[in-house]
Amino acid sequence: MTDSLFLRACRREPTGTTPIWLMRQAGRYMPEYRAIRARHSMLDAIRTPELACEITLQPIRAFALDAAIIFADILPILIGMGLDLEFVKGEGPVITNPVRSPADADALRTPPAEENLPYTLDAIRLVRRELDGRVPLIGFSGAPFTLASYAIEGGGSKNHVRVKSFMLSEPDAWNRLMDKMATVVGDYLVAQAEAGAQALQVFDSWAGALSPADYRAHALPYARRVVERAQSTSVPVIYFGTDLNGMLPLLRETGADVIGVDWRIAIDDAWAQLGDGVAVQGNLDPVTLFAPWPQVQRRADDILARVAKRPGHIFNLGHGILPETPVDNVRRLVDYVHERSAAMEAS
Amino acid sequence: MTDSLFLRACRREPTGTTPIWLMRQAGRYMPEYRAIRARHSMLDAIRTPELACEITLQPIRAFALDAAIIFADILPILIGMGLDLEFVKGEGPVITNPVRSPADADALRTPPAEENLPYTLDAIRLVRRELDGRVPLIGFSGAPFTLASYAIEGGGSKNHVRVKSFMLSEPDAWNRLMDKMATVVGDYLVAQAEAGAQALQVFDSWAGALSPADYRAHALPYARRVVERAQSTSVPVIYFGTDLNGMLPLLRETGADVIGVDWRIAIDDAWAQLGDGVAVQGNLDPVTLFAPWPQVQRRADDILARVAKRPGHIFNLGHGILPETPVDNVRRLVDYVHERSAAMEAS
Repeated sequence: MTDSLFLRACRREPTGTTPIWLMRQAGRYMPEYRAIRARHSMLDAIRTPELACEITLQPIRAFALDAAIIFADILPILIGMGLDLEFVKGEGPVITNPVRSPADADALRTPPAEENLPYTLDAIRLVRRELDGRVPLIGFSGAPFTLASYAIEGGGSKNHVRVKSFMLSEPDAWNRLMDKMATVVGDYLVAQAEAGAQALQVFDSWAGALSPADYRAHALPYARRVVERAQSTSVPVIYFGTDLNGMLPLLRETGADVIGVDWRIAIDDAWAQLGDGVAVQGNLDPVTLFAPWPQVQRRADDILARVAKRPGHIFNLGHGILPETPVDNVRRLVDYVHERSAAMEAS
Repeated sequence: MTDSLFLRACRREPTGTTPIWLMRQAGRYMPEYRAIRARHSMLDAIRTPELACEITLQPIRAFALDAAIIFADILPILIGMGLDLEFVKGEGPVITNPVRSPADADALRTPPAEENLPYTLDAIRLVRRELDGRVPLIGFSGAPFTLASYAIEGGGSKNHVRVKSFMLSEPDAWNRLMDKMATVVGDYLVAQAEAGAQALQVFDSWAGALSPADYRAHALPYARRVVERAQSTSVPVIYFGTDLNGMLPLLRETGADVIGVDWRIAIDDAWAQLGDGVAVQGNLDPVTLFAPWPQVQRRADDILARVAKRPGHIFNLGHGILPETPVDNVRRLVDYVHERSAAMEAS
């Protein structure tokens, strides 16, 4: 299994064929997934290990993907900390008792992962058994800044006024809050690796709302801490966020083995700014998959050509796959990346 | 007037004191503005030259800003093209008959600006008279890609699936649509300069949704065309969008005199990538203004220090000022940028 294409690419070893997986590959674009979700809520599906296992395996059965990623969500970790989370149809996640003061932040608990998220750890154990070595399994967590943003904003946010105001106005409480986030996230990542996850991705979905100076001062130290804790298990760690192309060198300071890049930069430009000693995951625009196949192919070719023969590229989208994505283009993309990269390598 | 701090900075001439204006400075954070909008809808305020003039002047009276920007919006240009535009409270702009097919695109009209947007041209003439040379007046337009995005999506959009699908699936119709957009935008910019605008800003608000390859192929040629037409009037042109930090060198190919940068990159890093021969506008995070004053000051200092003694910096936010922004921090920021930059220049 450590010889899988995906894990070798994480270690920047030559792979011959470029590995590919897709963020949110277990998701709404698949009819099999929609069939399960028609009968079960998001939180139920996440908290029932058999359902989470089944959803995780759906895209692995359907496509020749090189890695599975556990079906879960970055937000349930907040429930055990004392926040009431709901997924409201059409609105996304809502936290009904958000953190609005230092006292709110100080009241948050830091339960260990086995107590806070036992269902996801069970799901990881189940999936590993079911996969039986076919492809490696990725675990994941939100990064401390992104979780703090959800906790303070009470859900998604356009301008992040509340979280940034808290960060700038209450620096001590902010550091205590981020310390707690880093503790629970670090525990959770370690627990996932111990349960069987063979790689770990840290989603810093909202870090791109920050200026480089604020990221460096108020988010990076905690991202670095959770990456380090995850790496103590010796599995590779992927760090991903969008809208971060103005601060790629800073992302290296997280210490992650792999940096995920969005589609707003040419992958070779991104890699040049990231420097040597790191693998890169990405970076096809998810909307490309809505185009006629020749357009998808042309853009996949472009990405592969830009990183040809550079070990350490994991093909992926630059963001999660979108709900209405045509399944046939997904199948063709996965096969094409394998065929084309192998042919380029052989040439 | 051509000796104003702002216009000299656009031409990259030394200014001694750094000029400052704020995107959306005539807006909802000002009680004077809210008082007018309590009695008049957005479209009424835009289409009544006396109201647009009054709103334009409000921030000039309140703060020591170095430029006025005409109160208008990028979307009314679509009305004369045949699209039905409404501003829906809490939802933003909605186009009830969006462009969904090549036939829809081909049905759009391209009326001249004096017929399509006479009210804004009248407002510009009024403001110029009222300003009486106090500060220069900026006119503006949306860029062709951004207007096409609104026209096709029917409003704002998170993932831009419709506009990108159209662009990739209907390349010929896309080019005809963008050609029309470039024609009306170019006309409008020229007409604004002829009415008295002393600089022109092109807002490509959604260009940051594109990959560099798609931007280059499907948006940049039309952005370049409208910048060139605007420059034919010999006023300086500012090109601005957010989330473009992965393709700054491409933005130079618009030919704009000034590039506006968001807050997701250090301003000196951005300028280094943009290269010589261009002025830079930005780049304070708008949310910074919600912080206690010492934090605002620290970040303003940082920006000024990074571009110290480099002619061609126009201080601004990295995006429009937000509705709840504390007015007192705006006043202090404007004065501080003047004092601090003058002191740095003298040192």
